[in-house]
Amino acid sequence: MKKFINDPNKVVDEMLEGFLAAHHDMVEKLPTSRVVVRRGAPFKDKVGLVTGGGSGHKPAFIGYVGDGLVDAVAVGDIFSSPSAGQIYNAIKAVDSGKGVLCMLGNYSGDVMNFDMAAEMAREDGIKVEQVIVNDDVGSSPKDKMENRRGVVGEVILWKIAGAKAKEGASLEELKKTAEKAIFNTRSMGVAHSPCTVPTAGEPTFSLGENEMEIGVGHHGEPGVKRMPMKSADETTLMLMEKILEDLPFTSGDEVVVNINGLGATPLLELYIIYRKVYQMLKDTSIKVHRAYIGEYFTSLEMGGFSITLTKLDDELKKLIDAPARSPLFVQ
Amino acid sequence: MKKFINDPNKVVDEMLEGFLAAHHDMVEKLPTSRVVVRRGAPFKDKVGLVTGGGSGHKPAFIGYVGDGLVDAVAVGDIFSSPSAGQIYNAIKAVDSGKGVLCMLGNYSGDVMNFDMAAEMAREDGIKVEQVIVNDDVGSSPKDKMENRRGVVGEVILWKIAGAKAKEGASLEELKKTAEKAIFNTRSMGVAHSPCTVPTAGEPTFSLGENEMEIGVGHHGEPGVKRMPMKSADETTLMLMEKILEDLPFTSGDEVVVNINGLGATPLLELYIIYRKVYQMLKDTSIKVHRAYIGEYFTSLEMGGFSITLTKLDDELKKLIDAPARSPLFVQ
Repeated sequence: MKKFINDPNKVVDEMLEGFLAAHHDMVEKLPTSRVVVRRGAPFKDKVGLVTGGGSGHKPAFIGYVGDGLVDAVAVGDIFSSPSAGQIYNAIKAVDSGKGVLCMLGNYSGDVMNFDMAAEMAREDGIKVEQVIVNDDVGSSPKDKMENRRGVVGEVILWKIAGAKAKEGASLEELKKTAEKAIFNTRSMGVAHSPCTVPTAGEPTFSLGENEMEIGVGHHGEPGVKRMPMKSADETTLMLMEKILEDLPFTSGDEVVVNINGLGATPLLELYIIYRKVYQMLKDTSIKVHRAYIGEYFTSLEMGGFSITLTKLDDELKKLIDAPARSPLFVQ
Repeated sequence: MKKFINDPNKVVDEMLEGFLAAHHDMVEKLPTSRVVVRRGAPFKDKVGLVTGGGSGHKPAFIGYVGDGLVDAVAVGDIFSSPSAGQIYNAIKAVDSGKGVLCMLGNYSGDVMNFDMAAEMAREDGIKVEQVIVNDDVGSSPKDKMENRRGVVGEVILWKIAGAKAKEGASLEELKKTAEKAIFNTRSMGVAHSPCTVPTAGEPTFSLGENEMEIGVGHHGEPGVKRMPMKSADETTLMLMEKILEDLPFTSGDEVVVNINGLGATPLLELYIIYRKVYQMLKDTSIKVHRAYIGEYFTSLEMGGFSITLTKLDDELKKLIDAPARSPLFVQ
């Protein structure tokens, strides 16, 4: 395991120290809880937006705490959920009386802890709603969508919900828009090399010298199928067919595309992948309204990528286009 | 070699196709030459800014073609200089009569081709000046600075020169400011794993299972020393000592810091490194005016990072803080 770290048990705290030193103008840490909050929170007349999850996915989650994005992130250990107590503290820190929307990926630990935190906050009289992202078509068949994991759809949701909250939407309006964004989003990933959690010291999975796995999760969860490495175009075709048929996306749709590097895959390759995605969408008369290509939600140094499509209507188009500014996302 | 590509000989052209499809609102390709130009160029009453170099360094070089940054990039093959003809075409495309500043890294192929292109353009009556970036203290001793390679200092220069050109500076003023920025900038890198150029199919270098190399170049050029992997803090200390003593940076200075991932090193580790850099600067009473932490100039999937410091005066501070917007850099 070659890593530029110090103590494997301190990677998250030391990372956070560096992050706060670099971005102290925009964010701060709660004094007694590992929660990153936007400076100036809570914001009057704005629903507070909370997310959280395991570390190791940078720029997610803390890189998106900012203007037009999320207000607080509960920071877990590498690939581990934050505690209910941390999430509760995050909720309290961003409520201005208008309520708080919690946004989380569909992972059992996160779901349990966010549920518990919401209950605790409601007992304090805070209005809390939550939405659960389950965009990964590789993680479960469509008739069991409730089992699907959340992946890059979370980033798309933060952008959309962040813009909607900034407009002054009520908690109910915000939840409705967030649910629409989740419903309209589909992702699928592929990896050819694993990552190593520092405290574990061993790769999260192993693949043959010329093998890749499609449908693999953001924490190395098993995918749909292992096979010999394919070309960029063949791999993209496989993922896109699954994504397109799932919603389904059809002729005349307008979409946001996200091509996300999982950590070690060069941006050069992501653009080669986008080339094929763009061709396929053009051939199907689906219009790309906006394309995000880069590292938006990684898995440490995993080699691979994911493709995410979100179908837009006029409301979502306006929200995805709104300006946003956080330590690791500026638009 | 596991890569999501199609034909190894077409990676640059296919990447460019994807890049142009994604960012056609900001950039375009010259019809008959592999040159990426900012839409609307040449810009009246503004010196044109040209750079160029090998591909495989994304977001460099083409990701920085934009407002407040560079106007044109001549795009070479992976880790290879663009031709003199491409550079000449880039110069012609961005000259509005006020002249063109070429900015390049100190690599023999680039220097030769940029020289030739400048000569060709001057014969057409275009005023051309050039500055050569040589910020890598790991590549040669201080008494042979003319042999030093250019690395992330190029990105800092593009930002500063881009802002200065936008202010309407003359070619002479611009060159003077650019030379100051280069003179004030020092970098050093370290790697623990190589990258593979697609057409070569073999890693650019090899290291032992627990080995790293400090001073390594952006194309896998040999570094200063190989040694067993050190902790993040120990590695950072080694690099920072070399960087600080070289200019030298001293108490009371204000600096821009760039912690640059070379490709496969997680952002989490870069923040752990920045934590130590920040502590060291604080202990030396050097003030961080701005910190850039992420992937700014990569080497495909190389594992490692570099540290860059630029000493600022009032002029450079204002220029580094100016807004900028390009496909892969927004501030």
